[in-house]
Amino acid sequence: MEEIVAVRLGEDSVILLDQRELPDRVCQTECRDHHQVARAIRDMAVRGAPAIGCAAAAGVWLAARKGLSEAGPYFGAWMQAACRELAASRPTAVNLGWAIDRMRPLLDTNDPPERVERRLRQEAEAVLAEDAETARAIARNGSRLVSEGAAILTHCNTGSLAVGGPGTALGVIREAHRQGKGIFVYADETRPRLQGARLTAWELDREGIPFCLIVDSAAAPLIRDGAVDLIVVGADRIAANGDTANKIGTFMLSVLARTYGVPFYVAAPRSTIDPATESGAGIPIEERDPEEITVVGTTRVAPPGVRVYNPAFDVTPAAHITGIITEAGILEPPFAQSIAALGAGEDR
Amino acid sequence: MEEIVAVRLGEDSVILLDQRELPDRVCQTECRDHHQVARAIRDMAVRGAPAIGCAAAAGVWLAARKGLSEAGPYFGAWMQAACRELAASRPTAVNLGWAIDRMRPLLDTNDPPERVERRLRQEAEAVLAEDAETARAIARNGSRLVSEGAAILTHCNTGSLAVGGPGTALGVIREAHRQGKGIFVYADETRPRLQGARLTAWELDREGIPFCLIVDSAAAPLIRDGAVDLIVVGADRIAANGDTANKIGTFMLSVLARTYGVPFYVAAPRSTIDPATESGAGIPIEERDPEEITVVGTTRVAPPGVRVYNPAFDVTPAAHITGIITEAGILEPPFAQSIAALGAGEDR
Repeated sequence: MEEIVAVRLGEDSVILLDQRELPDRVCQTECRDHHQVARAIRDMAVRGAPAIGCAAAAGVWLAARKGLSEAGPYFGAWMQAACRELAASRPTAVNLGWAIDRMRPLLDTNDPPERVERRLRQEAEAVLAEDAETARAIARNGSRLVSEGAAILTHCNTGSLAVGGPGTALGVIREAHRQGKGIFVYADETRPRLQGARLTAWELDREGIPFCLIVDSAAAPLIRDGAVDLIVVGADRIAANGDTANKIGTFMLSVLARTYGVPFYVAAPRSTIDPATESGAGIPIEERDPEEITVVGTTRVAPPGVRVYNPAFDVTPAAHITGIITEAGILEPPFAQSIAALGAGEDR
Repeated sequence: MEEIVAVRLGEDSVILLDQRELPDRVCQTECRDHHQVARAIRDMAVRGAPAIGCAAAAGVWLAARKGLSEAGPYFGAWMQAACRELAASRPTAVNLGWAIDRMRPLLDTNDPPERVERRLRQEAEAVLAEDAETARAIARNGSRLVSEGAAILTHCNTGSLAVGGPGTALGVIREAHRQGKGIFVYADETRPRLQGARLTAWELDREGIPFCLIVDSAAAPLIRDGAVDLIVVGADRIAANGDTANKIGTFMLSVLARTYGVPFYVAAPRSTIDPATESGAGIPIEERDPEEITVVGTTRVAPPGVRVYNPAFDVTPAAHITGIITEAGILEPPFAQSIAALGAGEDR
């Protein structure tokens, strides 16, 4: 079976699997410059915090490639503008800024632009390769938490479409399945953009992992009634104290998990931890287009013009989280300490 | 502004506002026999527990009307079969059985079929009129719980489309607005069938009540952050101990309300209370077609053939409910006592 790759580098382009078309069509979209990459991030052709980071790193390289022919003597300023544009494409995922920051040192040189471009390409390749390796390590670490025959509930999409390799939360699920643990998955459909129905169901179905799809609010009676052994979700930004921003609906699950004693894990690369953000209160929450709620596909489902509140994310307090599964191991509460001990800030 | 009427009697038909077409089109569908009424209930052209009761009462009359010309000497058996067919059209709403039981005594006579038909028509008219009067009393009683400037969260549709008159939970909201209390409403879209987006938003918009539409899971951070002063929902069946079956998603709201200290009210006519059902464990939960989740309008949102769990309702335990707003007053915990004191069983 062909591997799913959300972001890859072409000869002179960045090739994205257009996730808006799934599950109907498997389409690739080719970005020829960083403007197209920024638009793909904003419009969610590529999504998932780690994949956004990969796309942004690739976008910085693409900006250099285009700058070679178009920026003339202003190559440095051109690159700064490109980094700003990419960084502004979505506000919540910290991996976006992380990836761009990782490319920046290569710009602060007196090297000729051609050499800068070559090194940016190598760095983007490294970001993509490490992203996949990181996901494999998260999957291995997390799978140890999964017992034989466990029923696992997950939210949104955190698979190969969102991350390199097997994914984060979905990577844990994949690895447990690969180990023959006989797991069963409940996949939240994840309104408004239905990433669970469109993407997670597609990935699970493709790999023959037993699952069933539910509306987000149906998780509650399942959790109460003991049908769920474990909840694993991804993250878009983890603050220094462990507060975690993730797809809207995650916080609701965390309250239910806490109330009914179900372990609640966050699976994310260390690059998702933002030591500069003290707590959840400091995480900007993106509000998206009302039409994500009022129109599904080609069908209008609410009267035109009604007021809508559409936050893309919510913040789950550290106190609701049982553990954070990273490539370096599983962090336990108190997270302020375990995160500090991880030294997440040091290699950023 | 023209009043919304979900169910009304024509000369020789039952006229339903087809709620599947809203908000795009305001269409009436005319049922000429009880088979068509049963199908309209099953397919949710008419929905909402009290409106289902009204439609069923009207369906019993329509069965008699058709039986006059078709049943010949088997009028009694014809009517029994019709009652069974109508009663089986949906399993959870107790108002359905209640309405049919109310019509039954008129069948247990030696009167000629013509006279039975006339009396069934009168009784159906009385059911519809009382349903509207009941809703007005619920609205008046419930509005006393709403303080000036309150933000009220509601789920699904419990307005004039679901009940005669102003509705139950939405009736309380309407009445508080009419009294000039300056309220604001958060309307859950209510997956999978989106009754909040399609119907509640349409009713609120039509009457100029300030509101905003949210995905169901976005209620959680709003409740935590103190944006919601009061939650009011409807009910499909209330057990003798106060456990309440209502639209999937209600239970999740009740957990959040309890966790964050927000009052949680159920608004329903006494006919929704089923003294024969001891607790929530005895309430049958209807599971509906997977395509309610996998297809929205004309858009498929999940891979074909995936397994789906689609319960239409969930049960909120009595312990999560602050009060039950009925036409006879507001019931308080312990509900086993307040429900018994109401004598709900006596006039059934």
